[in-house]
Amino acid sequence: MAVRTIDVRERVMARNNDLANEVRQRLHAAGVPSLNLVSSPGAGKTTLLERTLADLGQRLVISVITGDVQTQNDADRLAGHTDRLVQAVITHGACHLDARQILTALDAIDLAATDLLFIENVGNLVCPANWDLGEQAKVVLFSVTEGEDKPVKYPKLFEEASTVVFTKLDLLPHVPFRMERALACCRQVNPDLEVLSTSALAVDGLTQWYDFLLARARGGPF
Amino acid sequence: MAVRTIDVRERVMARNNDLANEVRQRLHAAGVPSLNLVSSPGAGKTTLLERTLADLGQRLVISVITGDVQTQNDADRLAGHTDRLVQAVITHGACHLDARQILTALDAIDLAATDLLFIENVGNLVCPANWDLGEQAKVVLFSVTEGEDKPVKYPKLFEEASTVVFTKLDLLPHVPFRMERALACCRQVNPDLEVLSTSALAVDGLTQWYDFLLARARGGPF
Repeated sequence: MAVRTIDVRERVMARNNDLANEVRQRLHAAGVPSLNLVSSPGAGKTTLLERTLADLGQRLVISVITGDVQTQNDADRLAGHTDRLVQAVITHGACHLDARQILTALDAIDLAATDLLFIENVGNLVCPANWDLGEQAKVVLFSVTEGEDKPVKYPKLFEEASTVVFTKLDLLPHVPFRMERALACCRQVNPDLEVLSTSALAVDGLTQWYDFLLARARGGPF
Repeated sequence: MAVRTIDVRERVMARNNDLANEVRQRLHAAGVPSLNLVSSPGAGKTTLLERTLADLGQRLVISVITGDVQTQNDADRLAGHTDRLVQAVITHGACHLDARQILTALDAIDLAATDLLFIENVGNLVCPANWDLGEQAKVVLFSVTEGEDKPVKYPKLFEEASTVVFTKLDLLPHVPFRMERALACCRQVNPDLEVLSTSALAVDGLTQWYDFLLARARGGPF
């Protein structure tokens, strides 16, 4: 039975990869850069996006697809910061977004007008690593309230990501988190990881992140 | 194909439930109370267990089964605080422990001598909710660095749990976390949830937690 399970699973994954390629082609044809945000629950994906929409929303047309297990709380939070449509995907118990959901969500997004597309995945460090959504890059958020060894404990996601964004840097003085050890764990798993540091609550806490986004958005460096 | 996937999945789950019942019977026959600790990655399961082993290890014989996706870092951390065997289970990419793994791990544990068994699940708020491990109760850790709406966003785990343990209370002054809202979200999902507050870094931060454990351990209230 175990063999049969794997067999079915492989076919489901293969189908997902086909749909992810369709997403990739549509985004590429429309010239829309896309980032798949992944992290533990509570690492700060929604707060980071709220501030990003508020601060960059005048300069960039940002579209968002946000996935939640059971609510659309995150979508509602984000919608407060933008006139753009925020596409909510409720996974009804599933622990990750899949490419079919993204493909469906894209139908409601004006890609021709979009400078940057965020996909906010379900908060989970394991399962989203296995599901290609057709995004350009995975960005993993890593809160300094977590353990420094997260990358070696959940290696696949850190291997698949192009960028790690440390969040909640304002809490560093209050937590037993050694940034050097965390960086060493990141490098051990993926030496090519680009590293950004952020604090969504500090005044200039998102400068690195905004520079990163502006360099990637449609139209290139501002 | 979707139907067939669900069909296979249901049989896998049914098999897991059979094995979970076997675990439950063995633990019951041996009179061993057991707690399945679940939470987001980084909510503090291992740190809580480290302190618990150090502080209660003289009064209670505590056994631990700890699950990790890819390393045995958590087991190594815990082993530094106890002479007891800490059973490490590496799930090799899977996002939760299953009952078969617990059954196998029990073979290496001296149940007759054990006053309290902890099962430290993989850090994940979605998948562990679906997998009965044969434990007496699920205890969900909820860090005040996370969003207050975690229970409504990940309801199944909070429905299944008997107890919620707020962690990192020492960080409350530094985070935008309203305890009242978090409690309301807990109650909305599961009005029967027992609520404990902890700080593993504060001197008396684990008093409530230790009282809870001592009342549940073999031999009853101390």
